Amino acid sequence: NPRGGIKSKESRWSSICCCFVFCRRPPKLRQISWLLFVFFSSDIEISRAQSPKAVDVLAKEIGLLTDEIEIYGQTKAKVRLSLLERLKDQPDGKYVLVAGITPTPLGEGKSTVTIGLVQALTAHLKINSFACLRQPSQGPTFGVKGGAAGGGYAQVIPMEEFNLHLTGDIHAITAANNLLAAAIDARILHENTQSDKALYNRLVPVVKGVRGFSSIQLARLRRLGINKTDPETLTEEEISRFVRLDIDPSTITWQRVVDTNDRFLRKITIGQANTEKGFVRQAQFDIAVASEIMAILALTTSLEDMKERLGKIVVANDKKGEPVTAEDLGVTGALAVLMKDAIKPTLMQTLEGTPVFVHAGPFANIAHGNSSILADKIALKLVGEKGFVVTEAGFGADIGMEKFFNIKCRASGLVPSVVVLVATVRALKMHGGGPSVSAGAPLKKEYTEENLQLVADGCCNLQKQIQIAQLFGVPVVVALNVFKTDSPAEVDLVCKIAKQSGAFDAVPCNHWSDGGRGAVKLAQAVEKAANQKSSFKYLYSLELPIAEKIKTIAQKVYGAQDIELSPAAQSQIDRYTRQGFGKLPICMAKTHLSLSHQPEKKGVPTGFILPISDVRASIGAGFIYPLVGTMSTMPGLPTRPCFYDIDLDPVTEEVKGLF
Amino acid sequence: NPRGGIKSKESRWSSICCCFVFCRRPPKLRQISWLLFVFFSSDIEISRAQSPKAVDVLAKEIGLLTDEIEIYGQTKAKVRLSLLERLKDQPDGKYVLVAGITPTPLGEGKSTVTIGLVQALTAHLKINSFACLRQPSQGPTFGVKGGAAGGGYAQVIPMEEFNLHLTGDIHAITAANNLLAAAIDARILHENTQSDKALYNRLVPVVKGVRGFSSIQLARLRRLGINKTDPETLTEEEISRFVRLDIDPSTITWQRVVDTNDRFLRKITIGQANTEKGFVRQAQFDIAVASEIMAILALTTSLEDMKERLGKIVVANDKKGEPVTAEDLGVTGALAVLMKDAIKPTLMQTLEGTPVFVHAGPFANIAHGNSSILADKIALKLVGEKGFVVTEAGFGADIGMEKFFNIKCRASGLVPSVVVLVATVRALKMHGGGPSVSAGAPLKKEYTEENLQLVADGCCNLQKQIQIAQLFGVPVVVALNVFKTDSPAEVDLVCKIAKQSGAFDAVPCNHWSDGGRGAVKLAQAVEKAANQKSSFKYLYSLELPIAEKIKTIAQKVYGAQDIELSPAAQSQIDRYTRQGFGKLPICMAKTHLSLSHQPEKKGVPTGFILPISDVRASIGAGFIYPLVGTMSTMPGLPTRPCFYDIDLDPVTEEVKGLF
Repeated sequence: NPRGGIKSKESRWSSICCCFVFCRRPPKLRQISWLLFVFFSSDIEISRAQSPKAVDVLAKEIGLLTDEIEIYGQTKAKVRLSLLERLKDQPDGKYVLVAGITPTPLGEGKSTVTIGLVQALTAHLKINSFACLRQPSQGPTFGVKGGAAGGGYAQVIPMEEFNLHLTGDIHAITAANNLLAAAIDARILHENTQSDKALYNRLVPVVKGVRGFSSIQLARLRRLGINKTDPETLTEEEISRFVRLDIDPSTITWQRVVDTNDRFLRKITIGQANTEKGFVRQAQFDIAVASEIMAILALTTSLEDMKERLGKIVVANDKKGEPVTAEDLGVTGALAVLMKDAIKPTLMQTLEGTPVFVHAGPFANIAHGNSSILADKIALKLVGEKGFVVTEAGFGADIGMEKFFNIKCRASGLVPSVVVLVATVRALKMHGGGPSVSAGAPLKKEYTEENLQLVADGCCNLQKQIQIAQLFGVPVVVALNVFKTDSPAEVDLVCKIAKQSGAFDAVPCNHWSDGGRGAVKLAQAVEKAANQKSSFKYLYSLELPIAEKIKTIAQKVYGAQDIELSPAAQSQIDRYTRQGFGKLPICMAKTHLSLSHQPEKKGVPTGFILPISDVRASIGAGFIYPLVGTMSTMPGLPTRPCFYDIDLDPVTEEVKGLF
Repeated sequence: NPRGGIKSKESRWSSICCCFVFCRRPPKLRQISWLLFVFFSSDIEISRAQSPKAVDVLAKEIGLLTDEIEIYGQTKAKVRLSLLERLKDQPDGKYVLVAGITPTPLGEGKSTVTIGLVQALTAHLKINSFACLRQPSQGPTFGVKGGAAGGGYAQVIPMEEFNLHLTGDIHAITAANNLLAAAIDARILHENTQSDKALYNRLVPVVKGVRGFSSIQLARLRRLGINKTDPETLTEEEISRFVRLDIDPSTITWQRVVDTNDRFLRKITIGQANTEKGFVRQAQFDIAVASEIMAILALTTSLEDMKERLGKIVVANDKKGEPVTAEDLGVTGALAVLMKDAIKPTLMQTLEGTPVFVHAGPFANIAHGNSSILADKIALKLVGEKGFVVTEAGFGADIGMEKFFNIKCRASGLVPSVVVLVATVRALKMHGGGPSVSAGAPLKKEYTEENLQLVADGCCNLQKQIQIAQLFGVPVVVALNVFKTDSPAEVDLVCKIAKQSGAFDAVPCNHWSDGGRGAVKLAQAVEKAANQKSSFKYLYSLELPIAEKIKTIAQKVYGAQDIELSPAAQSQIDRYTRQGFGKLPICMAKTHLSLSHQPEKKGVPTGFILPISDVRASIGAGFIYPLVGTMSTMPGLPTRPCFYDIDLDPVTEEVKGLF
């Protein structure tokens, strides 16, 4: 019985939260002690106060078979893709996306809403549910932002496991990305310093008296139209075409990566040692989560599909202007081997014991900003037809949600049921004309005292983001993430305007201080909205020319009057169209701090012309990647980075200062 | 009963090999099928033909308690250091070091000897034993050399797990190393672009109305002799000293690392983006295993000790010539947090089910080349008083073994019982004047046909390496790793000369084709030698001046006539002595291909002057690090790297082409 696990699970799953220690206290006392604890505790202290159940127990509860998990320590496990085959006839659950309004630099709590919502659904409404989150980059964890496990009583635990190496996926991406980068430069050097014959002798050596092409070389010969399999029969001209990739160094788009905020690597010159014989060139390191391999991990649907995508990565053009791929460099197999474990989603749990998948973590401004398709797909099978999977898209709905629909849903074929749009009074006041908000600086009084006018004025951004979601035909529930300084009148005003603006419902949430209990109303609203008829549609047809697709997003989503393509952008568009990549979806690289390209323009900017400075292509991931203005792909460390407060107690082995 | 696990283990451990599939066939048939299988199979096919037992079963067999392991998948587990406390009264087993003669570039099989020896001890002599190996770098795995799991029937399985990410230790080292590097350059930039006051306001911000120093900042104040704890009371001069590390960029010795053979990163210019405001400088990336953090992992004895060593890392000098440390940068805690799991050794098994620890992997030519002290210490407790722990030192005895004794044993306080010195007929012929041997090129006929004269002439290198081991007062057993082209007369000759040269015994080994059975004679010889009285002593006193210590190694170990210090080396020695680092042991960075500094000088070179081009210091790891001639700390990719043959079957998930 291939669905045996699931059936037995359905009766048990909704009782998962019973291990949550606080639930056993009397309600009143619980509330008081909670408030005291929350007020005086950091996220990591709250995380540590709750012992997670053993991950194999969790896995069993949600219907996984013993041989479908690979345990990593006590609290993490990788889940095998074979599960998808076993459950292929199981109907999917409801699919909920958590997106947000245009945020302040402090973030508005999408992760806590995601976690609070599944906690409410599972423990309070007794509905199977699953959260799918992105793996955080170590750059921000040690830099400015800190961790990303949620916060307060809506967290993934243990939060230090979540925020540190997890199960090594980002490290695997870094290793694969940098092997490919090293292969490019080494190949250029070897081609520049060797004759055709020497290259051929090295590339196709005599082994145990026999000379033969490897399978990856035979594939290259076929691509070159050379239908030969015996290395001794190639003509000199064929040998030359075979051995020379003839990469034009000025066209290399493949960059090295590190998962560290290392601003000094934003622009570098490489190859300056004597051994590289003068073949210096300018290059850069990006943050690891910006790697195309991260996007591939997030968008792939199987091991076979991942390997195919890795091979299709275009790293540069040759001197004739044709694309050079990872496959041409002979490195596809090695990249797939390096990524063979990373493709399996990692199972963790919330503070209330709800299952969570953590898988893939592309940034939403410089990449597509969504966790993996595979995690969502597996979770949708596991929760069963009446269950809910809640997944999160990075930054505002104009960024992460647009890419979720147009890129991720297109690649997965999955149809979302509901969008939860997260708003805060703080961000709305900023959009209404409040003073600027920045990390590290204390909040101005406009944000800590009631100010209904600022809230009312700022709701234009909320309204616009609701309208963007509606472009895709999906019902919207607004989740107002309530802070203790928000007044009841402010909260009521936001909910009223949200409903007037077309939201299916709008509810205040208190999951940060109350856990799942604080998000019960949200869960009820989401459940109702999911029973609405969804008429999901994409924003644009892939058949449109690249520039038209960019223009559609700029006008309909961002509210731009038009776009302006730089000459570089236009020439790249022409090249990609000529190379046959014109029918890919678009992944805009744009600031997340405004609907426009100018971070300081809050609210709903209008009448602006969106400047497209350059256009790149992630052929393996499967999208065209226009740059809106200048976008940094490598964050920096501030004067006092987060790491100042991070410490390890060598006796208890406890981590301190992660938040 | 804290030793309950151990006692019950001792009766079971020696039966571990019963799961080895081949053992159940009749002896004759077994031998024939073995030979056929070995001849036609690659290392990975042999690895895959044997199913490893579940790692929790293995852990139980060797006496580990359930809460002392953290399982990573089915075949790997990290072992908690708490074990050392539980077993602190358990006597140590015998401690055996596997070293080698000066190798050819192909390697002479130290890892296979190490594995074959523990297989023989455990499965055939029924003596508890443990192998301690280094984790291989992914650079060579995908570059020239391939994997490092041993080979044939003396392997760690599954070899793809061993050779790829393992449990993420090298990735953790890379992350920690590069966070420190990013912190250095970011700090220089912030100091260069901000006033004392601005720096102070950012470093010691007002949080919730209160301004306070963090504990790491209080420690810095104490080092500066400023005995104040209230940030409001510092004088302007004190603020200036506190906020400015005043790093002299020309003295930065801390480099970034990647675990990839990326030759174009050997010399680079960083900081060329506009955002870095012109503060460009020349820098380099090293291979990750050359990081001082790898050396710290290998030499540390506890979590507390590791944290202390991480804080003591000297990254540069300030403009007054004083050392600047990781602790000064405020990053000690974060480094310790990143390394908190890496400090736990990883448990795996041999093809015959013998336990193996894989932990730390510094290269032996550019670092100290030995696996971790913690793995050895834990293993020595687990095997019990009559058991054996076999650990391996990289490259020739002049390199890895010398550092094992003078650096590793000094840090651990452990006393070795026996040195196993691995030799091959191939390498001896090379030392006797045979033609050059290089990776990728077919072997010349001198190496495939009997040639007693070349063997006899080359034994000088074996004799010299035996004598080096004897300098330390430890008995030597020569293990001749037999290849199928070696003639019986050649084998006999080597063993005869070895014994004449002072070896306690010398035996031919066939573990590659026969597994543990092929190393039984070696195991018997090692057992006998371990009952000899060891009169272990270090080669030099730490009290000697740095130059004298270098000279002692050069003359007594390498056979140099003298050393020649470059002006740079002399000035560094003077600086380190003045800074109080003069009493550290020495870790020579020297080619492994000759006893001298010239790789082409085989046999036993004499009369040479050893050039010391530069001297560096790894204060956290605890050694002074002289460079002999030019030593590359970043390997490159050849024209046809190993990755050409590596592939992943997307259906079976099998890895192909790793060797």
